[in-house]
Amino acid sequence: MILVNGKPEDRINVSDRGLQYGDGLFETIAYRNGIAEFVDDHLDRLSLGCKRLAIPFQQLEQLRIELDTVCHNLTADTVIKIIVTRGSGGRGYFADINVVPTRIISTHPYPSFPDSNCTTGINLRFCQQTLSENSSLAGIKHLNRLEQVLARNEWSDQSINEGLMSDSHGNVIEGTMSNIFIVKSGQLLTPKLDKSGVAGIMRSQIMKLANENDLMVKEDAITKDDVNNADEVLVCNSVIGIWPVRNIADVTYPLGPITQQLQYALQQLEK
Amino acid sequence: MILVNGKPEDRINVSDRGLQYGDGLFETIAYRNGIAEFVDDHLDRLSLGCKRLAIPFQQLEQLRIELDTVCHNLTADTVIKIIVTRGSGGRGYFADINVVPTRIISTHPYPSFPDSNCTTGINLRFCQQTLSENSSLAGIKHLNRLEQVLARNEWSDQSINEGLMSDSHGNVIEGTMSNIFIVKSGQLLTPKLDKSGVAGIMRSQIMKLANENDLMVKEDAITKDDVNNADEVLVCNSVIGIWPVRNIADVTYPLGPITQQLQYALQQLEK
Repeated sequence: MILVNGKPEDRINVSDRGLQYGDGLFETIAYRNGIAEFVDDHLDRLSLGCKRLAIPFQQLEQLRIELDTVCHNLTADTVIKIIVTRGSGGRGYFADINVVPTRIISTHPYPSFPDSNCTTGINLRFCQQTLSENSSLAGIKHLNRLEQVLARNEWSDQSINEGLMSDSHGNVIEGTMSNIFIVKSGQLLTPKLDKSGVAGIMRSQIMKLANENDLMVKEDAITKDDVNNADEVLVCNSVIGIWPVRNIADVTYPLGPITQQLQYALQQLEK
Repeated sequence: MILVNGKPEDRINVSDRGLQYGDGLFETIAYRNGIAEFVDDHLDRLSLGCKRLAIPFQQLEQLRIELDTVCHNLTADTVIKIIVTRGSGGRGYFADINVVPTRIISTHPYPSFPDSNCTTGINLRFCQQTLSENSSLAGIKHLNRLEQVLARNEWSDQSINEGLMSDSHGNVIEGTMSNIFIVKSGQLLTPKLDKSGVAGIMRSQIMKLANENDLMVKEDAITKDDVNNADEVLVCNSVIGIWPVRNIADVTYPLGPITQQLQYALQQLEK
């Protein structure tokens, strides 16, 4: 099912700035067991993104109602993607302030992953493709995603589940579609995202769960060496939840206690 | 007029990766006095961009034929925009190699600029918004253009014609929609674009014209100070041609002999 500005429609105008310039944002929401998870957090991040890009998005409540309607008709676990673009118009890069943003809601079958991704962990690789740094675009989930496309297409080996991306200084930032946490000496660490990366909703949830469970958690600069020397590594996003990492290249990690504790806490939250 | 994959159509599928990720490229071609200018150069850059992004674009000849058909029906000066996206499909950022790229040709009225832009020059500003650095994306005209959108929307004063963008190290790279050349002690200098920026077709033409006219021209790192201390400054793109710069903030430049020589040489070429 696809709604464009609230109407069943699977196409948008070629002049939409989302296509012309990637001038917009998106959210990927997990609908599981009859619930659209962390909707408020997703819509908050979307609003923040609109503010950061100065997209005058006045239709948040309308979007919420449309989302409710979409959910009401779902009969199975589903991935819901929301796109908001600045809309059609303006001369070139200059955006007419009267342009009305475009909102798109689409539903997609929930991907099926092997149970082992959660129980024994996944294989990661380090990507060659770097993430560029720009504090104006860091953190938000905007539509300029060529770096992720290039990184994800570095490998087709299906036994590799995710790739880690670093900035040009060698700081590990995130996976192509996930955030990363490492555990060292009992402390959780996740990369600072002030210059690159997407501040994931599941990342925030994990930080919240860590605090609630008296686990130390810190945003910091993290190098490849830090990842290689970590006691535990996990990746996360709204659709996959938490995946422990078993392997990165030659380095093997155990399914450690902190990752398991967080998985358990997340399960309780989602019940 | 808009053609999508050769057919009159003004919409594309929401699932197109051009919208989803900015996964594509574009070209802006000037059709003037009955001629689509520098078409081969534009299509060469498009092909290079497809190679760099590993978009398997096999429809270049078809695109050329469609472009000819579009031009055949034009009765006035027109801006022709071509977009090529990776097409619809693949799982997330991973691109199915069987996806067929989408090609879009659209025509737009030629913008009318005051003659004074060419004859006495324009006003520039320095933008706050920086350009990020990523050699994978530098030079090509891809669809991830949020930095340009943010930069161009820093000002609405219509007496300012263009804004200059720098990278995070303070190197001046380009205008939001143009390339820049400065003249110092008789030598033309234009920023190196190995990490940021779009290698404009008009920029290449100017370098070619400079060589043909025994003018020294060099790609180099250029700072704001270099711009402020230049003898002449010009910006260029395929639609505007060459605009001398009269003012950047408090600094005023003369309409100098090298800029005029290049304008004359370009006029001869376009005749």
